Amino acid sequence: MAYEYKLTRRVEFSETDMAGIAHFSNFFRYMEAVEHAFFRSLGFSIVSEGIGWPRVHADCDFKSPIRFEDEVEIHLLVREKRQKTISYTIIFRKLNGDPVREVARGALTVACVTRDKPGGPMKSVPIPSEIAGKIEAAPEELLAQ
Amino acid sequence: MAYEYKLTRRVEFSETDMAGIAHFSNFFRYMEAVEHAFFRSLGFSIVSEGIGWPRVHADCDFKSPIRFEDEVEIHLLVREKRQKTISYTIIFRKLNGDPVREVARGALTVACVTRDKPGGPMKSVPIPSEIAGKIEAAPEELLAQ
Amino acid sequence: MAYEYKLTRRVEFSETDMAGIAHFSNFFRYMEAVEHAFFRSLGFSIVSEGIGWPRVHADCDFKSPIRFEDEVEIHLLVREKRQKTISYTIIFRKLNGDPVREVARGALTVACVTRDKPGGPMKSVPIPSEIAGKIEAAPEELLAQ
Amino acid sequence: MAYEYKLTRRVEFSETDMAGIAHFSNFFRYMEAVEHAFFRSLGFSIVSEGIGWPRVHADCDFKSPIRFEDEVEIHLLVREKRQKTISYTIIFRKLNGDPVREVARGALTVACVTRDKPGGPMKSVPIPSEIAGKIEAAPEELLAQ
Repeated sequence: MAYEYKLTRRVEFSETDMAGIAHFSNFFRYMEAVEHAFFRSLGFSIVSEGIGWPRVHADCDFKSPIRFEDEVEIHLLVREKRQKTISYTIIFRKLNGDPVREVARGALTVACVTRDKPGGPMKSVPIPSEIAGKIEAAPEELLAQ
Repeated sequence: MAYEYKLTRRVEFSETDMAGIAHFSNFFRYMEAVEHAFFRSLGFSIVSEGIGWPRVHADCDFKSPIRFEDEVEIHLLVREKRQKTISYTIIFRKLNGDPVREVARGALTVACVTRDKPGGPMKSVPIPSEIAGKIEAAPEELLAQ
Repeated sequence: MAYEYKLTRRVEFSETDMAGIAHFSNFFRYMEAVEHAFFRSLGFSIVSEGIGWPRVHADCDFKSPIRFEDEVEIHLLVREKRQKTISYTIIFRKLNGDPVREVARGALTVACVTRDKPGGPMKSVPIPSEIAGKIEAAPEELLAQ
Repeated sequence: MAYEYKLTRRVEFSETDMAGIAHFSNFFRYMEAVEHAFFRSLGFSIVSEGIGWPRVHADCDFKSPIRFEDEVEIHLLVREKRQKTISYTIIFRKLNGDPVREVARGALTVACVTRDKPGGPMKSVPIPSEIAGKIEAAPEELLAQ
């Protein structure tokens, strides 16, 4: 049973804005990147026949900016696993700089859906047992850190 | 005194993802676009000498997907004006389709800051009076709609 | 028979980079936006049952930077219509500022393709006659301006 | 003296479009990413006091699409070093799949510039000798491969 995953990436030039910092929309792209890497670490792809994982909620609190070439740890923790949704907490830490510090903290809730045909309406369904069986909520103390 | 602004845009191909819908990170770009258009409507630019407006919080609830060439109304409402921050509610409505319906609802909190020099640390400051004097919170009933 | 289309857009904050200018990758997104608007002006959508239009070539020469809130005219001209491909010249002009000046010039070649099934291999095909019949190459003097 | 650099990355979900493939604008972001990694490999940052490297030309030929989670090698080769500009050839190879194949090939020309003040006009200048002294054009046979 897995409940966390860490990814490190370096802020790219195309991700900065004229304020000289990573544009806030990129934090949401980073959240998704770590979610997908978490799935790969379990032997799955977020994209598979039959089901999809649309986002139903996303949020982020920004504490301090990150800049070009900063190394950022993106730490995903499973906050809640329900029958049809998974909620994640995602903690961003700037690794270069002393001390390492949390620069942002976000959340993502995704729903498991199927659709009858490509482009058709999405229908919420229970998370397949082979996936649900590998994921559990992280210990409280990790989420509260 | 102003408390709202509406912007309409059409979903672009580059904003879609392989699920055939607008990627969720774009809703945050749209939020910022309407915030900046709101400022222009008041005679200001969000980018000006001396002050900046970093995001301290952003969230969004996604109710139904939008697709390529959908026309989306992005409706910004001032939820709260404080001494150093402004919080917005942003309602996304899909205009094509019958009836017009809300497809997502988000929030953005921005802080007014200065920095001593380009790239220097940002310092939270009161919103300049010429800006604060033109903005007020929207009526409760508009926010609750 | 149509051979050109003009679109105006304002540079958004999320399109700028830490150099304070619109990131060059956005010019390619702009090129595509005007191509799709051109198709809409002819009564078509670039996305339709049965065919697709992948890019086979794109280039751009950057003459002078554009910045946040600059108004940019994106002028598409059909350079060549062949049996299975269309090539466009796209001229970017900064409208604010005196005089109006060309800031970049690019090109795009797109191929008409079909695929047997979603995600299947794409196969180059002749442009459907109802589309090809509405498009022609722009006069030489417009392309040479 | 260095003349090449290779970077591998995996196509992200946010980089795909509704055609199910990586959106073409991302190839230009990838080109820049490998250029910046090349500079880091030489002990420099593309962002430094005093000089900047705006793009003056970019192009790309797209041979076959890449998809979500494909692993892509981005191979930068110095094609030409002039007094004030550097031109690169960038070859994209899809690593998963048998055989490994070239999926796209692009080019980037960047100019070395200074500016008197932030936001001021950029002025083309000779590449600083400590940088120019570490870079040379790649052998013809590598560029012709």
